[in-house]
Amino acid sequence: MYACLSILILFFSSFSFGFGYDSLPKEQQMALQYMRAVTDNDYRKLLNFYNRDSTFEDRTAGKSYTGARDILTFLKRAHAHVHEYEFNIEQMYNSGSLVIMIGNYYLKGPGKQFGKPGKIIEVAIPGVTTLIVDVNNHRIKKHTDLLDYAAMKEQLSMQY
Amino acid sequence: MYACLSILILFFSSFSFGFGYDSLPKEQQMALQYMRAVTDNDYRKLLNFYNRDSTFEDRTAGKSYTGARDILTFLKRAHAHVHEYEFNIEQMYNSGSLVIMIGNYYLKGPGKQFGKPGKIIEVAIPGVTTLIVDVNNHRIKKHTDLLDYAAMKEQLSMQY
Repeated sequence: MYACLSILILFFSSFSFGFGYDSLPKEQQMALQYMRAVTDNDYRKLLNFYNRDSTFEDRTAGKSYTGARDILTFLKRAHAHVHEYEFNIEQMYNSGSLVIMIGNYYLKGPGKQFGKPGKIIEVAIPGVTTLIVDVNNHRIKKHTDLLDYAAMKEQLSMQY
Repeated sequence: MYACLSILILFFSSFSFGFGYDSLPKEQQMALQYMRAVTDNDYRKLLNFYNRDSTFEDRTAGKSYTGARDILTFLKRAHAHVHEYEFNIEQMYNSGSLVIMIGNYYLKGPGKQFGKPGKIIEVAIPGVTTLIVDVNNHRIKKHTDLLDYAAMKEQLSMQY
C-alpha cells in the first residue's frame, strides 16, 4: 500500500530535463546513465562502462557473462531486433556502491525470439536490477537482473 | 505504471484463508511460511528453516551471518522490542529455488534502536528480499535483504 502511494515513475526523459537528477546520489546518477545506454543499445557507451572484470548476471535465467566482450555479445544478440526497449523504474535506492532499481522492462518487437514468429509482441517484465558501480572509474562491476519470466510468459500467452 | 496496476497486496492473513496460496509454486509457499516465522518472531519455527550453512545477508547494511545460531541471535537482537512487524509483499516470483519478494517492512516500536529514545516510531521500509530455498529439505539456504534505509531515515526524520 505504502509503496503504491509512494511510487515515483522515473522516466529517463524526465531526468534529461532536470527532474531531480542532480540531487540524486552520484551512484544513482551513474546507474541511470548506464541503464540508458543499455536500453538505447548504445554499445559504444556501454564499452566505457565495462572492463574485463565486469560481470552481467541474469539470475532468474541462470546465465552469467564476464568481461566487456562477452557481455556486449550477449546484449547485442538479445536486443538486436527489438523495436522499443525501456526500463521503467518505479523505485531506486542505493547503499554506497550498491544500487537497487525496481520496475519493469518494456519490450516491443518481433515475436520470433519469444516463440511467436510472424507476430509483433509487447511485454512489460517486472524485475529488479542491482548494480555495483565504481563511480571513480566509471565502471559497472556487477549487473544483476532478477526478472519475472513467469509474468512475461503469461503476457505472451495472451497475445495471438 | 504497469506494476502499479498489477500490484497484488499479498497479506499473509489472506493466504491462511486460501487466497491462492495453494496455487503458488511450492518455493513461494515455503518462502511465505518462512517470512511469516520471521515477522512473527517465531524462533522455534525459524530454527527448523536454518542449518549450519544457511546465510542471512543484509546487503544494504553490509552485514552477513552464517549458521542457525548466529542468524537467530541477530534476529532476536534486531526485533526484541518491536511491537508490530509485517512484511507487506507487493510482488513475488521465483525461478526454481530462487524466490524474489518486493514490498515493504512495516515496523512499529520503541524508537531507541532508531535514535529516537522515548518515542514510538513507525516505518515502512521499501525493500527486496531474495531467498534461495531448498524445498525438499525445508531449508533456507540464503536470505538476502536489499532495504531502502535512506527512505527509512527520511520517515524517521519526520517523527518527533
